[in-house]
Amino acid sequence: MGPHPAVAAIRLAVRRTLHEILREARGDVPGAGLPPLVLVACSGGADSTALASALAFEAPRLGLRAGGVTVDHALQPGSDERAREVVSRLTALHLEPAEALTVTVGRDGGPEAAARTARYTALDEAAERHGALAVLLGHTRDDQAETVLLGLARGSGTRSLAGMAAVSGSPAGRPAARRRYRRPFLALDRQTTRKACMVQSLPVWDDPHNADPAFTRSRVRHDALPALEKALGKGVVEALARTAQLSRDDADALDAWAREAELSARTAAPAAVEGATGTGTAPGAGTGTGGTVAFDVARLRALPPAVRRRVLRRGAVAAGSPAGSLFARHIEEMDRLVTDWHGQRALNLPGRVAARRQGGTLVVRQV
Amino acid sequence: MGPHPAVAAIRLAVRRTLHEILREARGDVPGAGLPPLVLVACSGGADSTALASALAFEAPRLGLRAGGVTVDHALQPGSDERAREVVSRLTALHLEPAEALTVTVGRDGGPEAAARTARYTALDEAAERHGALAVLLGHTRDDQAETVLLGLARGSGTRSLAGMAAVSGSPAGRPAARRRYRRPFLALDRQTTRKACMVQSLPVWDDPHNADPAFTRSRVRHDALPALEKALGKGVVEALARTAQLSRDDADALDAWAREAELSARTAAPAAVEGATGTGTAPGAGTGTGGTVAFDVARLRALPPAVRRRVLRRGAVAAGSPAGSLFARHIEEMDRLVTDWHGQRALNLPGRVAARRQGGTLVVRQV
Repeated sequence: MGPHPAVAAIRLAVRRTLHEILREARGDVPGAGLPPLVLVACSGGADSTALASALAFEAPRLGLRAGGVTVDHALQPGSDERAREVVSRLTALHLEPAEALTVTVGRDGGPEAAARTARYTALDEAAERHGALAVLLGHTRDDQAETVLLGLARGSGTRSLAGMAAVSGSPAGRPAARRRYRRPFLALDRQTTRKACMVQSLPVWDDPHNADPAFTRSRVRHDALPALEKALGKGVVEALARTAQLSRDDADALDAWAREAELSARTAAPAAVEGATGTGTAPGAGTGTGGTVAFDVARLRALPPAVRRRVLRRGAVAAGSPAGSLFARHIEEMDRLVTDWHGQRALNLPGRVAARRQGGTLVVRQV
Repeated sequence: MGPHPAVAAIRLAVRRTLHEILREARGDVPGAGLPPLVLVACSGGADSTALASALAFEAPRLGLRAGGVTVDHALQPGSDERAREVVSRLTALHLEPAEALTVTVGRDGGPEAAARTARYTALDEAAERHGALAVLLGHTRDDQAETVLLGLARGSGTRSLAGMAAVSGSPAGRPAARRRYRRPFLALDRQTTRKACMVQSLPVWDDPHNADPAFTRSRVRHDALPALEKALGKGVVEALARTAQLSRDDADALDAWAREAELSARTAAPAAVEGATGTGTAPGAGTGTGGTVAFDVARLRALPPAVRRRVLRRGAVAAGSPAGSLFARHIEEMDRLVTDWHGQRALNLPGRVAARRQGGTLVVRQV
């Protein structure tokens, strides 16, 4: 008799991911002696406990070592004790290494974002210290659906609906580890991971944060998604997960187009001649081309609006505007310098960047 | 003293739309004598009653005539009486013509879709009979948000999140009227239209269907959206409306790319040689090129997945597969013939279309 269907499902998902990791690592496996290591990040909840159990089962069969880490965010009293408990569960699953990573959570971007930053920094560090091929994360299709809804609430378009990738790098973006994080359960539902823990008699811990309505994600999980399911039917979670995949591919294709279009729309920055701007406010001459981007307006105008706006955003960032401070309204106003030119004055963008029309050229420059 | 802010807002929205209509119609205004006509479709609800009042106010100031129609779906007893009541309200607003259009609602695609089809057919007919420049529809930003959520529930990607267009043709798609329908209120909220009716003492009629939980849209309006707002904040409606606009532009750009990519990936259909398919099931030779589309696999493979899938879909439709019967899983399987070729047999698509790999060519053909 084979394993319970839920256990079979989590193992299959992990097996596929490990095959992928091995295929990609071919010939590039670090060190001799020990088999290559794959880590799992485990919070002690059902999703990542199921993931740890499946990794423990599958890794040795593929000539891999399985290890596990848990992050102690040190935000509540007793979190260290809980982390030790998770480590002992990982050890019981024969994961080696099995260790707790204690982090200090800052305040940047709110409590959820700060915890996330601290967590990935610690995971990156552990992966590098142990020379791990990859770190597996337990996000499920339900988490994906929640992420899409959170992105929808931002209303910032296709990229924000792309959810989490099955393969991603550290959010901190170290280029050496662009495919470090894997999410084998992104197509599995949360119920399957719970069931898999139950039938394997694995104790799981329900993070009280997940039910705390102070957290947006918790409200999405416990209120918004059930209401959407009631109104739209049970397929909503699946539809949201599918939306994530399609949106990711669409956003990637449009970004690729914008990269090429940006290159072909670039032109030489014109000499800053007083009066040429049509606004009477001459740009500071002699700032050189450092932080200066110039576009041929006719070429920009020939692009579809969706691509043109991406090119303009890229131009603003290249000139020195911080990506996180550039909002849709900034890009809209830049776009009007291209498509609705009637002698507007120079437009101020975040990061002391100014966009101005000079004849048939759009000049974006740090001032 | 100017009008109440809500009345000013609805009038401004209509004025902008009328300016746009006039700009587009320049030199192409039908007939001499009477000024050109713009119609409003009015259900008697707050949105379209506000729209009718704003059209009645603005049209004469721009040298236009304002007329109004109401559709009697004849689904409940007494609907004819109500339609007459709406007509008398339109007449009281000095709209001329003001008339009721009685339709017969079929069953195709469910009650909501069938009513919609019947409604637009009647509106098209009225617009043509009266030689109207355009027909104004009262959809608000709230309707737009609901439409995006309904599209999200389909999970079929960026185009399904595009909501309603500010300018659109008849869904039946008569090419002569591609810009017939205008939605001036797409950026206004429902509360503004209600307020505008109230302060103008215009009676409005609340369609009981709008509160009937048997209708998906009604459940979205009364349950799903409030739950989303509670979880994610008051900005959700605006975020959904913004998502619609961004998704529409993105989908348009990707469709344009796919159109071009389809042309350059097309190749001559190879002669159907037995055995060349690798499956042993030779295609019926001599079916000619009617309904046959052939793609160069290498060119397809060079495209980003989002574009390639759109090209494949276009190819299937060109070969004779009905667009409405082609699902994501069909396109996924076609894609595997391109990107994961290991001698699969021919793939059957709706409309007796088969896709098969023949060497470096993908042949899509009606059989």
